[in-house]
Amino acid sequence: MNSNAWIFTLGNEVVEGRIVNTNAAFLGRKLSLLGFSVIANISLRDDINLISKLLKYALLEKPKIIITTGGLGPTYDDRTLEAVALATDKKLVINNDAFRMVKEKYDKAGLPMTEERIKMAKLPEGAIPIPNPVGTAPGSWLKYNETVIISLPGVPRELEAMWESWVEPRLRKIAPNRIVLEHSFKISKVPESSAAPILKNVMKKYCGVYVKTHPKGHEVRGPLLEVYVMAFGNNEKAVNNVLERVVNELKQRFKELGGEIIN
Amino acid sequence: MNSNAWIFTLGNEVVEGRIVNTNAAFLGRKLSLLGFSVIANISLRDDINLISKLLKYALLEKPKIIITTGGLGPTYDDRTLEAVALATDKKLVINNDAFRMVKEKYDKAGLPMTEERIKMAKLPEGAIPIPNPVGTAPGSWLKYNETVIISLPGVPRELEAMWESWVEPRLRKIAPNRIVLEHSFKISKVPESSAAPILKNVMKKYCGVYVKTHPKGHEVRGPLLEVYVMAFGNNEKAVNNVLERVVNELKQRFKELGGEIIN
Repeated sequence: MNSNAWIFTLGNEVVEGRIVNTNAAFLGRKLSLLGFSVIANISLRDDINLISKLLKYALLEKPKIIITTGGLGPTYDDRTLEAVALATDKKLVINNDAFRMVKEKYDKAGLPMTEERIKMAKLPEGAIPIPNPVGTAPGSWLKYNETVIISLPGVPRELEAMWESWVEPRLRKIAPNRIVLEHSFKISKVPESSAAPILKNVMKKYCGVYVKTHPKGHEVRGPLLEVYVMAFGNNEKAVNNVLERVVNELKQRFKELGGEIIN
Repeated sequence: MNSNAWIFTLGNEVVEGRIVNTNAAFLGRKLSLLGFSVIANISLRDDINLISKLLKYALLEKPKIIITTGGLGPTYDDRTLEAVALATDKKLVINNDAFRMVKEKYDKAGLPMTEERIKMAKLPEGAIPIPNPVGTAPGSWLKYNETVIISLPGVPRELEAMWESWVEPRLRKIAPNRIVLEHSFKISKVPESSAAPILKNVMKKYCGVYVKTHPKGHEVRGPLLEVYVMAFGNNEKAVNNVLERVVNELKQRFKELGGEIIN
């Protein structure tokens, strides 16, 4: 079964590099460890047509989940849920539960519900609001055909709190039954171009394994590679066994090339 | 004239969140300050069909430039230039200049040109190789209709060195004549939902201005906003003038709401 995930991290400040996109790394890592296969992370300007076009593109690929971050706030360019509604051909409506969540927060401070505050209670029709224990704007959980579209705020501490308390427990129920185990080690003295045939060979020989080298030194003058090995499958013992075998085989073959294993 | 830029930051380690995507921030920032309008940053798995499909999608939007990072190395899944060739309907061929660049580096270390090393000299037909002063794999500069597709390595120190020494000087020649000036300040005591109508109003009133609030505190219990103002145009004095006027007007109006300006 398809267990693909697409991530959308939205906001001009992201594409223009005014911030480093730590949300993308947070979500990519969490989803991978849950067993999902993260296909893409797409950052876009706050442009409703652009966002809805690329959401539609992703929906045509029928991923299991799409996660969006950013654009849930009260300002003129916080229009992510409008784009989600457009892409899924739904209306954006005031959600009663979301309205209560937002109103409760402003009530406590004696502040009235203005147009900008009501805006944060508008979700695509049929969506479930995701409580925001840290900030104000609720998130949105929307089922659309085979895909669940989860929209979260862009502020990292809000996103992370909502992920831990609400999203991840629900994703565990629909996550693929896929164990993911990984191991990294470093080797010196082997250029990446000499390691390449070994990697290719190992990838051919084993199923459910992914191997990648990341150069950390200089290819010719002082080669240093970080070797990343990931094994996956639905039986933990078998996955662990493959991981160990692959790591040992790689280390052995790198040593034969004159490599020195570091840690 | 269109001065749009799309960035592609490629690699499983990026989408899976095993690294934080600092290349995206580096390129987004550099391109914005050169006056380009960065539309999208797309991170994708090392999947040649996926990459070429989304490159084609971007090419249909006819941006001025597309930059790719990652996937230029010697291993089995370094296939970005193959994807670029596929998306632009060109052949991937050994480029003589690129071959010389790569060969020279291995010659110095007394290493022969293997299949994996020759692979790094293969560029889409018609591309110009970009010298890599720090690593081994050259980059690629390919004109395709209205778009220049620039492919750089994923290792940040290689990408940055190639950007500074070769790419940016050439982009300056085709960059839009657009001055971009920016200013940020913080205000406390104003919830973002109260600031929203002011922002909307200012955006309507001024041309060539972009204003955005980033919440750094708690909307109700202790509001703290970072206010970002960007002004652009082709006359530096005029742009600076608008920037100052907008910043002053915003500060004034936030004060009227009981806000306190910080720095």
